[in-house]
Amino acid sequence: MPTVLPEIDTPAAVVDLVRVRANLDRVAAYCREHGLAWRPHAKTHKTPELGAMQMEAGAVGLTVATLREAEVMAPVTRDILLAYPPVGAHKTRRLARLLESGARVSVGLDSEEALRCVAAAATAAGTRPRVLVEVDVGMRRVGLARVEQVLALARRVEDEPAVDLLGIMFYPGHLRDLTGAADPALLQLADCVGELVTALDGAGLPPLVVSGGSTPTLWHSHRVAGLTEIRPGTNLFNDRTSVAVGASEWDECAYTVLATVVSTAVPGQAVIDAGSKALSREEVRGSLDGFGALLDAPEVVVRGLSEEHGILDLTGSGLRPRVGDRVRVVPNHVCVSVNLHERLHVLDGDRPVATWAVAARGR
Amino acid sequence: MPTVLPEIDTPAAVVDLVRVRANLDRVAAYCREHGLAWRPHAKTHKTPELGAMQMEAGAVGLTVATLREAEVMAPVTRDILLAYPPVGAHKTRRLARLLESGARVSVGLDSEEALRCVAAAATAAGTRPRVLVEVDVGMRRVGLARVEQVLALARRVEDEPAVDLLGIMFYPGHLRDLTGAADPALLQLADCVGELVTALDGAGLPPLVVSGGSTPTLWHSHRVAGLTEIRPGTNLFNDRTSVAVGASEWDECAYTVLATVVSTAVPGQAVIDAGSKALSREEVRGSLDGFGALLDAPEVVVRGLSEEHGILDLTGSGLRPRVGDRVRVVPNHVCVSVNLHERLHVLDGDRPVATWAVAARGR
Repeated sequence: MPTVLPEIDTPAAVVDLVRVRANLDRVAAYCREHGLAWRPHAKTHKTPELGAMQMEAGAVGLTVATLREAEVMAPVTRDILLAYPPVGAHKTRRLARLLESGARVSVGLDSEEALRCVAAAATAAGTRPRVLVEVDVGMRRVGLARVEQVLALARRVEDEPAVDLLGIMFYPGHLRDLTGAADPALLQLADCVGELVTALDGAGLPPLVVSGGSTPTLWHSHRVAGLTEIRPGTNLFNDRTSVAVGASEWDECAYTVLATVVSTAVPGQAVIDAGSKALSREEVRGSLDGFGALLDAPEVVVRGLSEEHGILDLTGSGLRPRVGDRVRVVPNHVCVSVNLHERLHVLDGDRPVATWAVAARGR
Repeated sequence: MPTVLPEIDTPAAVVDLVRVRANLDRVAAYCREHGLAWRPHAKTHKTPELGAMQMEAGAVGLTVATLREAEVMAPVTRDILLAYPPVGAHKTRRLARLLESGARVSVGLDSEEALRCVAAAATAAGTRPRVLVEVDVGMRRVGLARVEQVLALARRVEDEPAVDLLGIMFYPGHLRDLTGAADPALLQLADCVGELVTALDGAGLPPLVVSGGSTPTLWHSHRVAGLTEIRPGTNLFNDRTSVAVGASEWDECAYTVLATVVSTAVPGQAVIDAGSKALSREEVRGSLDGFGALLDAPEVVVRGLSEEHGILDLTGSGLRPRVGDRVRVVPNHVCVSVNLHERLHVLDGDRPVATWAVAARGR
């Protein structure tokens, strides 16, 4: 085996810029075709250079999950959706500073307590952020599930003088393997969204924005009538899960962890220096085993992980790597792997052209 | 509920210094009683201040898994065991620099390729590091399993003029729930170690050091004849796993993730702002469900995790936290949680007294 990327010490996060550009262009074209606003989620990359590429490719703004992400992405775009309720004095102060900096912020929330924090930040900053009421469309994580709850909180937002009601948001994280236009789960989602929009319209609170969309549901978004905006994150890089659920092809995976084989002492396996502190111990829900697979030999799966060890299962492959060989691993879940690395090594073609700090890691 | 630690923004890693000191004193006393050298693993904390506390409490030196950890811990102790084979040109250069800095380094390895890297670094630095041959005592991760393989590599080390043979090392990570002195797995481990030591003695390569020990096997170490050194990591902080396997008590858990309740919209649960990017998605092997439990209400389990959401299952508890309340979560596996945080908030009693950088994160 030739030495892969000898310039880079391992384990390392590596990004293929050619594939990133193709992934961005593909989703931008889809959104143009279907009249959807594209607001990609920056939690996946946490890297301002990649946020800027998303904006240049046609995003209307960025989605973030933490105030740290918002603070780091604010120079890249004024238009930020904080898709997470800011709760408590620290978050209120940080949101106020973000608003003071000139960012045009909208916030998703599902409680009066979070609304009070947003209103307090708005009052302190002297600006009017916009609020999306978060609704639960079946994931059972956060969000209000009953129509009357949604209407009640939307009215509270409408009555709050310091903010504007923008609409509703949801995250369909419970939908993974959609089969097509007639998928029952997709029809149920469309019904649920339709019912909410009708109820809000009827209450005189018509939603300007209905924001949803994940990577697994991405290419089905146009089938949900009333949806105005989608927020895919993973799609920028893709990963073993996005391939498993049919949302991407293997050769659209743009992120890998470069690793070195450090032991072949135990027969039938090779041990690499990418463990749970480089890949993260995340299972693909459903049938796939292991914690990642080799980009160039996807039949070789990372069967086990310790903190600094990944166990490559060689029993289903002719590959017999030796100590010192290098491999590139596609992780199960790219967002949590990126979060484990200080920097991304950026390739244009086969050549490293830059290293970018994962600047929005941490708090 | 009173506001817990209002000074600290959430999610945050919090360390109880009183419990850390007690945990250190307990293992130091055990090692003194049984004549074992104590070389705690710095991968758990990655924090020089805690490495220094371990040295003050009686450690003979520190164990590390990465060269980054070695570089960060070198000012704390000269005596470092790199319990991971350095492979490749980058690692060879970094090891050479570490040796040049005056560190007294020993290295564990299981291949001739890794031995060549150590020898090259030693030659470049003009010092003589010591080598431990890594043996597999049943975990099937790394290490040589057959006695003749161990002898062959030990001879290669002995014949290598740039290094000294120090002995053997192993990691009994496959042993979790030891029942006592008569546990069959423990007897098998003792047999295995005894056989290796006898063979090395017989070959004229008597091991000066026989290094083993994990947190789950910690308090059984004296039952393995021939063992001279142990390398527990987790024991400094403990976690939900160390309690589950009987290696610690719940009130010996010294590390928690401080979190804020951000949503109670879905009945029967409360959502906190500590998700997989603060706790890590690690299961307790065996019977325990979930990804962590509340320090002050261990019946409340983190049932599910998204990246920034932890789902507290309230169905088995009278606890009814409200949005804005704060809780402290004991993670399943403390080492990977620490690695997700930039800094540790250090409490002495109930009072924050310092923040320490987790300086050996990253590569």
